[in-house]
Amino acid sequence: MTNKTFDLKQLAEKVGGYILGDDTQVVSGIATLQSANASHISFLANPAYEKYLSETSAAAVILTEEMARKSSVSVLVHKDPYLAYATLSHLWDTASCPSFSETDENTESQSEEINIHQSATVHESATISKGVTINAGAVIQSGVIIGAGSVIGPNSIIGVDSILGKSTLLHASVTVYHGVTIGDNCIIHSGAVIGSDGFGFAPHQGQWRKIAQLGGVIIGNNVEIGANTAIDRGALDNTVIEDGVKLDNQIQIAHNVLVGENTAIAACSAIAGSTTIGKNCIIGGASGISGHLTVADNVHITAMTMVIKSLNEAGVYSSGTGVQPNAKWRKSIARLRQLDKMASRVKALEKAIKTNS
Amino acid sequence: MTNKTFDLKQLAEKVGGYILGDDTQVVSGIATLQSANASHISFLANPAYEKYLSETSAAAVILTEEMARKSSVSVLVHKDPYLAYATLSHLWDTASCPSFSETDENTESQSEEINIHQSATVHESATISKGVTINAGAVIQSGVIIGAGSVIGPNSIIGVDSILGKSTLLHASVTVYHGVTIGDNCIIHSGAVIGSDGFGFAPHQGQWRKIAQLGGVIIGNNVEIGANTAIDRGALDNTVIEDGVKLDNQIQIAHNVLVGENTAIAACSAIAGSTTIGKNCIIGGASGISGHLTVADNVHITAMTMVIKSLNEAGVYSSGTGVQPNAKWRKSIARLRQLDKMASRVKALEKAIKTNS
Amino acid sequence: MTNKTFDLKQLAEKVGGYILGDDTQVVSGIATLQSANASHISFLANPAYEKYLSETSAAAVILTEEMARKSSVSVLVHKDPYLAYATLSHLWDTASCPSFSETDENTESQSEEINIHQSATVHESATISKGVTINAGAVIQSGVIIGAGSVIGPNSIIGVDSILGKSTLLHASVTVYHGVTIGDNCIIHSGAVIGSDGFGFAPHQGQWRKIAQLGGVIIGNNVEIGANTAIDRGALDNTVIEDGVKLDNQIQIAHNVLVGENTAIAACSAIAGSTTIGKNCIIGGASGISGHLTVADNVHITAMTMVIKSLNEAGVYSSGTGVQPNAKWRKSIARLRQLDKMASRVKALEKAIKTNS
Repeated sequence: MTNKTFDLKQLAEKVGGYILGDDTQVVSGIATLQSANASHISFLANPAYEKYLSETSAAAVILTEEMARKSSVSVLVHKDPYLAYATLSHLWDTASCPSFSETDENTESQSEEINIHQSATVHESATISKGVTINAGAVIQSGVIIGAGSVIGPNSIIGVDSILGKSTLLHASVTVYHGVTIGDNCIIHSGAVIGSDGFGFAPHQGQWRKIAQLGGVIIGNNVEIGANTAIDRGALDNTVIEDGVKLDNQIQIAHNVLVGENTAIAACSAIAGSTTIGKNCIIGGASGISGHLTVADNVHITAMTMVIKSLNEAGVYSSGTGVQPNAKWRKSIARLRQLDKMASRVKALEKAIKTNS
Repeated sequence: MTNKTFDLKQLAEKVGGYILGDDTQVVSGIATLQSANASHISFLANPAYEKYLSETSAAAVILTEEMARKSSVSVLVHKDPYLAYATLSHLWDTASCPSFSETDENTESQSEEINIHQSATVHESATISKGVTINAGAVIQSGVIIGAGSVIGPNSIIGVDSILGKSTLLHASVTVYHGVTIGDNCIIHSGAVIGSDGFGFAPHQGQWRKIAQLGGVIIGNNVEIGANTAIDRGALDNTVIEDGVKLDNQIQIAHNVLVGENTAIAACSAIAGSTTIGKNCIIGGASGISGHLTVADNVHITAMTMVIKSLNEAGVYSSGTGVQPNAKWRKSIARLRQLDKMASRVKALEKAIKTNS
Repeated sequence: MTNKTFDLKQLAEKVGGYILGDDTQVVSGIATLQSANASHISFLANPAYEKYLSETSAAAVILTEEMARKSSVSVLVHKDPYLAYATLSHLWDTASCPSFSETDENTESQSEEINIHQSATVHESATISKGVTINAGAVIQSGVIIGAGSVIGPNSIIGVDSILGKSTLLHASVTVYHGVTIGDNCIIHSGAVIGSDGFGFAPHQGQWRKIAQLGGVIIGNNVEIGANTAIDRGALDNTVIEDGVKLDNQIQIAHNVLVGENTAIAACSAIAGSTTIGKNCIIGGASGISGHLTVADNVHITAMTMVIKSLNEAGVYSSGTGVQPNAKWRKSIARLRQLDKMASRVKALEKAIKTNS
């Protein structure tokens, strides 16, 4: 976190809120209620943390109008404190590419200059727009187009004929294969691989014959892709990640998957080939979704769910048995395997009762 | 996809089929029945898509003899349309390394020249065979041997004394540790790590003492390894991936695992240490197989299965509870935990009935 | 494995044991009982392998005092043969960085020289201590501090203002973001990403507003991190990995997680945000732990467990249904879904019995 200072009035203006208390008070950071000191602004978004409000040492707290009266320190009143926190957080970002805030305030002074590190390799046929930075060791292959203001991290690679939009950030060690299109304002974290071959093979005499993966990957605008996530290229048509999608770390997106607008997928989830995920879905971590399925818009899948059929209606879906002490778990599993027999015994009992009556 | 053109006669010859219709007709790509236009050849392999056959705009369709009469356009007749599609797909591959098709047709004109990018680092003791390409930023350490026609992608690394066979492709950002052997005609995708230390520690006074991992990794011929997959080196003996194995993305292969010939493992699966997987197995995505187990040849494990005992016979195996609406799932889980009590109640009923009778 | 030779007396001294037999006998490697030959020392740690003891061709075997009499070859007697094996294994390590043994014996001759490969990029403001090696293509950004004797692998990247301790090894292609602190004697494997953004977004009008991740990552001493593991930076406070923690491959550690001292986590596990894991825990592979939970010290979680509540007491915990032949599995799952109805039927039977009696 940087130590840039702002007075409360400035902060209120940035988020469209107002101050209760001394709006000339200056803060130099943002922190949780528990760890904030007198130089910090804090916030209360989760009711579970209300107990910390009375004890906080923060200079000011972002609160809803309803909660404001419970504060003994200055308040930045906002109808959505979590959103206000999200906006303000970018003021103190120390990321090496600080221009990649999503807040409007930070976009004023983008340079026109192109910066290419001497150890980067950029093919002469690549089109590099104004304001682009290409860091050490990056490799830009032939026919690549990079839009204005985008940043390519150290040792990242962009394959033949791939296209990046404007103000897109590839962190270090990102690999983009050939024929991939990425939109504007995207953030792609280290170790992500985009455009690797889909897993397609035809069986032939006990062996596997590779199917060339001729499709590409199309990624929309405002997409974030986490560390070590992999997105395969399509077999014939494209794999598609629509605008506003947020993918966490270690995710697998197989060939010809479509992820709809503004869907968020938590870490370690896997979507098998040709499955279509709707818009505005939330998919919990380590979930698996089989191939050739459809998941409707506004579906919420809880963590570690095993999706083996299409989910055609919005709603919350789950599977899994949940943790137990090992001894109880062993008993549960044994009973589960006797269920078929138990069903027969219940049936026999029902018959016996009928006979008895 | 490139736009290379072929007439139907040429295509039929490449796959060993024949044409019904005008065999001088020219096509410049391959596409699904739904998205094909008059410049494409298409195919029907999955009966579920038969409904699209009558509507396709393709110039020609690959069909079995039985299906051929249902087509209103030209037909490339082949006894295995999916295999024919696999073979033809390579004609239009735009991958940066187009010589890595598995079809025989494309191997005619391999160059004898060695191409090493000026930004690559190749140790003087490495043996680089004819026709090898080493791309920008790649690092080849001492004692490495690379066979004829192999390609090392940008920023890929091959550690001390590792050996690569002929016509093997490492895409960008692949890491091969020291003492690893990889065969001929392999394809390794970006982010894959081969030869990292197995997870071996001896407990000692509440801490962990590292065990040096002295084994290597032996990978056979015609193996494909997906993006961000990791294969650990053996503790004392080697970790072994036999010929023809296909590993998808994000897979974990622990130390001293053996994966038998032509087994295919889907994404996100994990095989724990010292487990032996048979030949011609198919392991569904996100499956986990515990350590020190044996899986027989021709075992098929469905996705997300939890394998905690050896599977000694060929067959299909599964586990997991499958997705439900959250409310029903909660009820299922609660009932599962009451199963032990329910079993007692059924027993009591059986006793009572006996007493009553 | 190297072929360095040692006589048995030397080996006994290194581990604090003693020899039964000819202590001048020379060995040049360590191997399992089954694969050892007359130039190897072997060991027996797992009783399941006792059957191989009588057949081994090893020159000597590490055994407990109790087992020693069962050996027909020389014995290195040690109270913990597995620990002795761990210690001796480092003598024959061929890793490119052989100085990174955890045994005291190997630290004698560390060079004072700084080695920076000409193709590495090191910012002028970085502090590089004596004995540091920076390999080809590595990128060290501004303000970085690297402690004495640490090694940075080829194409690895250390972001702005990050700090590495002494004798820490980053293998090839490791990515450390800005503002990360890593202790002494750590080993980080290829493809690991440390300090990527936590997955934090505020919902706003159907879209996601990114929350800048202002915290860092603090990693203690003697930590090992596996290939392709990702550790996210904290949202406001830090993500913390305490001393002696061992993380296997493909693990996901989300923002603001704390992993307690000497805890070991097996491959493909995922810990969601703000969860605290105690000390000396063992977490089996492919387990998932939800966010905002607490796991007590000395908890053992078996593989593929789904932890969706806090575990407040030491013990062994599990979940999952375990593999079955597919046909039986289908029946189990169907019965599981009928459980609620079956419970009603049992209740009805109990009522009927009462009425009958």
